[in-house]
Amino acid sequence: MNVLVLGAAGMLGRKLATTLMAQAASSRQPPGRMLLADVVLPPTTAAAQIEATIADLSQSGAAARLIAARPDVIFHLAAVVSGEAEADFEKGYRVNLDGTRNLLEAVRAESARAPYKPRVVFTSSIAVFGAPFPAAIGDEFITAPLTSYGTQKAIGELLVNDYSRKGFIDGVTIRLPTIVVRPGRPNAAASGFFSGILREPLNGQQALLPVSRDVRHWFASPRAAVGFLIHAAEMDTASLGSRRAISAPGLSATVGEEIEALRRVAGDAATRLIRDAPDEAIARIVNGWPQNFDTRRAVALGFRADASMDEIIRVYIEDELGGSLQTAEQSA
Amino acid sequence: MNVLVLGAAGMLGRKLATTLMAQAASSRQPPGRMLLADVVLPPTTAAAQIEATIADLSQSGAAARLIAARPDVIFHLAAVVSGEAEADFEKGYRVNLDGTRNLLEAVRAESARAPYKPRVVFTSSIAVFGAPFPAAIGDEFITAPLTSYGTQKAIGELLVNDYSRKGFIDGVTIRLPTIVVRPGRPNAAASGFFSGILREPLNGQQALLPVSRDVRHWFASPRAAVGFLIHAAEMDTASLGSRRAISAPGLSATVGEEIEALRRVAGDAATRLIRDAPDEAIARIVNGWPQNFDTRRAVALGFRADASMDEIIRVYIEDELGGSLQTAEQSA
Repeated sequence: MNVLVLGAAGMLGRKLATTLMAQAASSRQPPGRMLLADVVLPPTTAAAQIEATIADLSQSGAAARLIAARPDVIFHLAAVVSGEAEADFEKGYRVNLDGTRNLLEAVRAESARAPYKPRVVFTSSIAVFGAPFPAAIGDEFITAPLTSYGTQKAIGELLVNDYSRKGFIDGVTIRLPTIVVRPGRPNAAASGFFSGILREPLNGQQALLPVSRDVRHWFASPRAAVGFLIHAAEMDTASLGSRRAISAPGLSATVGEEIEALRRVAGDAATRLIRDAPDEAIARIVNGWPQNFDTRRAVALGFRADASMDEIIRVYIEDELGGSLQTAEQSA
Repeated sequence: MNVLVLGAAGMLGRKLATTLMAQAASSRQPPGRMLLADVVLPPTTAAAQIEATIADLSQSGAAARLIAARPDVIFHLAAVVSGEAEADFEKGYRVNLDGTRNLLEAVRAESARAPYKPRVVFTSSIAVFGAPFPAAIGDEFITAPLTSYGTQKAIGELLVNDYSRKGFIDGVTIRLPTIVVRPGRPNAAASGFFSGILREPLNGQQALLPVSRDVRHWFASPRAAVGFLIHAAEMDTASLGSRRAISAPGLSATVGEEIEALRRVAGDAATRLIRDAPDEAIARIVNGWPQNFDTRRAVALGFRADASMDEIIRVYIEDELGGSLQTAEQSA
């Protein structure tokens, strides 16, 4: 099995690559080749069959070079994120639209040389949906994005469908929920606080909460998200028909429910580190975001969400804090 | 008022240009400039303010040249049709996707030089929808096309929405029903018979019917379609919000209802010219097409459909046969 991960230096790309390497190491199959690519050099191990490279899909010829080894599975996570795509219109379209199209065209050109139809797993986002929303967004709801990022992802979904229908690729698009708890430093993203109000207290630090506790949103842990991508790579796509974009299952929870889960897992000391700091601008942005989904299709296809917000918090403690809250409790 | 019509040599483009020229001639306003463009030279009158030009939007620089005079309204009808886009994958994407993007980018570049935000009326199609369908396709139904043409139109819709949201254009997308009665010769399009079973008998000629009489589809006359485009150019777009694609109102009718309308308007002699010639391939294609829409949004926005299939047939007689069935009745 020959795998290509595009966007392998990002938070999710790194976790995906690590999981795939661990799976390969524990497998009795002969190791396949893995190529990790991003605009900065992705971290990698010294294993002979794993290679890392710098590549920008939006540059002419880059995609052809990346797929020259004819990978069986291509994970396409490479993207300019929402805020940047909104601030830099040209860069967003160049990377998120042209980059995706360049990849698909490179595969089509390769398939014209000799039969080749890789599984392409494309990460989309709940940003393809825009308000007003129904109570739960179903699998037939219109993709009417309210950002350039969402527009570029919705176009990518359409391309993956059409290239699959024509037999050039065997594509699966996964619309990821908002990932919590994101590891690392706080960032400027409008969605940052959803992770911050859990992550900072778990690390014994104060967190600011810019919205009210009844704000509801749609979540998955990084571990669940990696699980979606691997399942998308392994699943039988025959039952997908022509609609290859799947809203991944997630957990619908309010900010208040996040805080109660934090209390159950880490105690009152942790929740006392959350300070209300209302921010009208952030509240307005978040108000236009999806709150809940009906993902019966994804569930029937075998995708599995986190069971609870408690579990999401425990995943963070296990994967990022070495499995215990010792440090956090000490500093709290 | 300065108007640009792209795709002005096509059936609908010609009718739109003719209607706009007649409106301008009967108006007491000073005549505006009108530029008619297509990949072949569009027909035009000798009026000084009307100009025709050959241009291919997919060629570098073509779009910039076409909008150099900063038209107030741009009708973008230029497209490779469904069958051709399916047969020639590269040409379909080059013309229908790159051409549309080139136009929008040229407007954005022009608006960066000095304030400029033209009304852009983009013709989309019910081909953006793919089976399975609800009983009536509403304004929130997923755009899941089953053809490359439908994919390219759905992408165009997303781009028109995003460029409008960002303030580069003031866009309106109209999803046109299948146009009946198309004037001219029979063609090889799978949808051709919907017009043929009316047009050929009205011209005293035999027509072949490849599907059963209970097949239902969604129709508008060429005159109604031109009306949609002009209304889209004149309407107040404030109420559209961020969803600028509108499924135009139409008429849902079965083949049997088409034939009964033909009988009422042109008599038994006309309907006797229709001969059943079942074609499994065409039946299968048509089976995947929309049958009915719920267009309450378009109706609330002031778009008006044909009142009946009888009216659709009378529009053809008035606009294409000089208002009477004399010739057809004589030859029948």
